Amino acid sequence: MAPTDDTVQVSSVSYQQLADIEADFDDLNTELLIQQTVNERSLYERRSALLRKITGFWPLVLEHAPPEIDQYVQPGDAMVLGNYLEDIEVTRFEVGESATSKDNGEPRSFAVRFTFAENDIFEDRVLEKRFWFRHAPVKEAKDGDDKKKSVAAESWSGIVSEPVAIKWKEGKDQTGGLLDLAVKVYQEGEKSASVEALTEELSKTAMGGISFFAWFGYVGRRVSAEESKAAATLKREQRAERAAKRAKGEKVAEDEEAGEDEEEDAIEIDDDEYEYEIFSDGDIVALAFAEDLWPNAIKYFRQAQEEETLSDLEFEEMDEDDEEEDDEEGGDDAEDAPPSKKQRT
Amino acid sequence: MAPTDDTVQVSSVSYQQLADIEADFDDLNTELLIQQTVNERSLYERRSALLRKITGFWPLVLEHAPPEIDQYVQPGDAMVLGNYLEDIEVTRFEVGESATSKDNGEPRSFAVRFTFAENDIFEDRVLEKRFWFRHAPVKEAKDGDDKKKSVAAESWSGIVSEPVAIKWKEGKDQTGGLLDLAVKVYQEGEKSASVEALTEELSKTAMGGISFFAWFGYVGRRVSAEESKAAATLKREQRAERAAKRAKGEKVAEDEEAGEDEEEDAIEIDDDEYEYEIFSDGDIVALAFAEDLWPNAIKYFRQAQEEETLSDLEFEEMDEDDEEEDDEEGGDDAEDAPPSKKQRT
Repeated sequence: MAPTDDTVQVSSVSYQQLADIEADFDDLNTELLIQQTVNERSLYERRSALLRKITGFWPLVLEHAPPEIDQYVQPGDAMVLGNYLEDIEVTRFEVGESATSKDNGEPRSFAVRFTFAENDIFEDRVLEKRFWFRHAPVKEAKDGDDKKKSVAAESWSGIVSEPVAIKWKEGKDQTGGLLDLAVKVYQEGEKSASVEALTEELSKTAMGGISFFAWFGYVGRRVSAEESKAAATLKREQRAERAAKRAKGEKVAEDEEAGEDEEEDAIEIDDDEYEYEIFSDGDIVALAFAEDLWPNAIKYFRQAQEEETLSDLEFEEMDEDDEEEDDEEGGDDAEDAPPSKKQRT
Repeated sequence: MAPTDDTVQVSSVSYQQLADIEADFDDLNTELLIQQTVNERSLYERRSALLRKITGFWPLVLEHAPPEIDQYVQPGDAMVLGNYLEDIEVTRFEVGESATSKDNGEPRSFAVRFTFAENDIFEDRVLEKRFWFRHAPVKEAKDGDDKKKSVAAESWSGIVSEPVAIKWKEGKDQTGGLLDLAVKVYQEGEKSASVEALTEELSKTAMGGISFFAWFGYVGRRVSAEESKAAATLKREQRAERAAKRAKGEKVAEDEEAGEDEEEDAIEIDDDEYEYEIFSDGDIVALAFAEDLWPNAIKYFRQAQEEETLSDLEFEEMDEDDEEEDDEEGGDDAEDAPPSKKQRT
């Protein structure tokens, strides 16, 4: 859309108010996500049992994955996944049996689990990467304690992870040593000798060429479970306080000047990012698995089959016109067994 | 992802089974959507009240809309929307007060409602377009009644609509007469004299250049409420029947050979499409409004502000480095009133 004249004034509404209402929506949707997770669980189990019977289901789905994932799958990765991937499973491991949030952890935490056939690339048959939904600590402004103005509106929440090691077979490390180094730095701390090696390795590698398997090294922000819990509680309390004040018609300190702070915060350089990240879009890839590829797997499978049928036909130079146009009802052919993909190619 | 060797066999699993399990998921998610709609309603009302106080909120959001919408907004449309759009509202009008599906209609039906300031383009202050979620009738195969094999697995469901007329002011029709013709053809039937005029008009217009306002002419498949209801009931019964048979270990007719039919159906030419469509991606645009722009409006607004701040800064040739890097905590500046957008530009 072409830019128009847009002198936006936030006027009497503060960013804090907008952030607070978004947080109210988040609360509702988190409740719903718990319920959805509990309700869908047995269906997903039934689905998994079905899909396991379809040879090559997940490799085909991954081959036609959404761009958030697809762009990171290098030709070498495609070979490994295409030949050896047997199963994918996404679980929201903090959600128990009950559909009420009191008895549950965070439904936005999840694990992506890959099962592989025995192969000559790595020893592992299962690679599982866990993501925890965390709230970054609320920052206090530095200028005087009397105000204690927090920038809760801007405080981060999202998923974090830990590097997962892969037991590469001799000479088969798809990441060229990068993942091993990432695991080491994470375990040994940021003052270890591995840091230098990783930094050097990272400087040599153009991000575009990094293997998909480097995704297992993703860390994200360094927020512990305790920090997150404290931050979530504090944010909730502050939000309730502001809501109570607004309801009584009282002034809320954060509302007064928050309006324009955002503009400055927006261009702030982030100091919470993990410094030794080998796969910086790791959270985007993870969410694409959990929220798109996993729930929509059958749709992607169907699309993949359709695309391959179409390209098969193109390959056959469209000489079988009747296949395409005459059988619009799809009924006449229904009794015949059309040639299977395998026979065709 | 590069293609690998993918000879997919559906083996013992039929497409019908995959479609059935997807339908089970749809059922669950429809229940959840009703609940979400009921739960969120008061929050959306509060949000709308807030957003109305922010001058230029919706024009700015639309200017930074997701590509599904953005690609159809021509410069002329952007001018109209940027100058006169006051409000957008999405409602799921078949959902009542109660959160159980028994008392509700279809939660996937929705309306998108635009409110405009008085303007010199059209008379309307409100343009509302409704979309109904419908199930296309289940097709029976033609070859013999003894089998009555339906292709329920492939039967379509989705949103349909009706053309909405816009009262253009003299010489201001953004669609060059196309929308008026679409309304006429729809009202007068496919044998009316308007059909020829519309066909000719359509042949002259390259789709890329059509105004966003032609979207109000979108129709989609022609499935009536009655047809849809009958189809939904039939599909549900057939699915329950198949589930019961599978549970008892009995053979399900559709399962036996459905596996490869899909490949043929995929390349079938669709005979249900409305022939006089002036905006063929109308459903995609509608869903982008209902499922993305509307729920994520505040996020788009924030992003838009950030982008504009960044481009403002670039415009100022980055000579105020301190704004960008030194104030990482965002605290020191918090007390100052930073120059507003209006002052800056």
